[in-house]
Amino acid sequence: MSGATSHLIRGRETRERVLQYAVDLATAEGLEALTIGRVASAAGLTKAGILGHFGTKEALQIETLDAGRRAFAAAVLVPGAHDPPGLVALVALVERWIDRSSRARGGCFFASVGAEFDAKPGPVRDRVAEILGEWTDVLVARTGEAVRLGHLRRSVASSSIVFRLYGYVLALNTRFQLFRDERAVSEARDAVLDLLLESSTPAGKRQLHRFRRAKR
Amino acid sequence: MSGATSHLIRGRETRERVLQYAVDLATAEGLEALTIGRVASAAGLTKAGILGHFGTKEALQIETLDAGRRAFAAAVLVPGAHDPPGLVALVALVERWIDRSSRARGGCFFASVGAEFDAKPGPVRDRVAEILGEWTDVLVARTGEAVRLGHLRRSVASSSIVFRLYGYVLALNTRFQLFRDERAVSEARDAVLDLLLESSTPAGKRQLHRFRRAKR
Repeated sequence: MSGATSHLIRGRETRERVLQYAVDLATAEGLEALTIGRVASAAGLTKAGILGHFGTKEALQIETLDAGRRAFAAAVLVPGAHDPPGLVALVALVERWIDRSSRARGGCFFASVGAEFDAKPGPVRDRVAEILGEWTDVLVARTGEAVRLGHLRRSVASSSIVFRLYGYVLALNTRFQLFRDERAVSEARDAVLDLLLESSTPAGKRQLHRFRRAKR
Repeated sequence: MSGATSHLIRGRETRERVLQYAVDLATAEGLEALTIGRVASAAGLTKAGILGHFGTKEALQIETLDAGRRAFAAAVLVPGAHDPPGLVALVALVERWIDRSSRARGGCFFASVGAEFDAKPGPVRDRVAEILGEWTDVLVARTGEAVRLGHLRRSVASSSIVFRLYGYVLALNTRFQLFRDERAVSEARDAVLDLLLESSTPAGKRQLHRFRRAKR
């Protein structure tokens, strides 16, 4: 390995380490808590070192959002690659989202930064909106797929289903983070299942029951 | 009026004016944005003047929470004093909550500060949790009343209904603030009505239909 390559790899590792810390801090205390000084001291680097890696505080915030997005995708999207398409894939996706919201320290990163930045115009807010919009699109597409496969009724509007699912996860997040209310996790799971079963066709119900029996 | 009384009244008016500004600022930018200096300059007072009124930044934050709580009660609770008890009172209460969440600049004050403080231990977080817990209790009590009056089915758990209602308002808040998506308001209204109608008895449905016809 040449000196330049190993320098590059070390640089990338440092960057990843800093961003990991930044995601945790921003989840717990908000993106505005991400000052160059604080991130530098936690990462054992100088302020100049952090600025060398990221440029500005705003650039660091945006890279932190992107790191959070990658971590979310790795935990919630990727494990679903082999889920049976349709209602089961949708339920499993939302269950992983619920798991993540109830486990992550400080709750769901994007629920936190969404509420923090929704009224602060600028590139950080725009990137938050973009990432949350992208996730909404994934949910709408998966819901639409369950409709097309005949698992959810044709009269069901995917956007309404997703609006309600989103609400259950946000309610879980608030309840869990603010009151440490463990029952919120089962409240959210029940709400998701009730909604999807009410909207499902007999074929959808069969797919779901078969899947849940197989999992036990 | 004695000099002391008019001084007291002026003091109270200044306090109210400062708190009004503080609620708006905290809704838009978060409670952490409430620095003594910023509030002082916006209110045309000196920092010493603000400190004289409130003591510390933390005390100002807590008084701001209480002012937000009073404003919320005035807009959402008080106008319901003459609503017919039961399902109609519950629906009307949630509709006022939805109105407020979609109108207030920066969205629902408590949705913002809830997400901001949920992972920051201390007296501010505790007061946020207390106020949100109190509001949850109001919703659970109103739902329980609708069950007792035979408008919602006995098998319905008030806490589950409230969990879901809460979710719809949080989803509205995120969607409206982040995407300026006006349809979120009707999505939230539809979700509330679907949930409550699904859970209602024939008597409940009759009360609600009668009331909605009378309102037109």
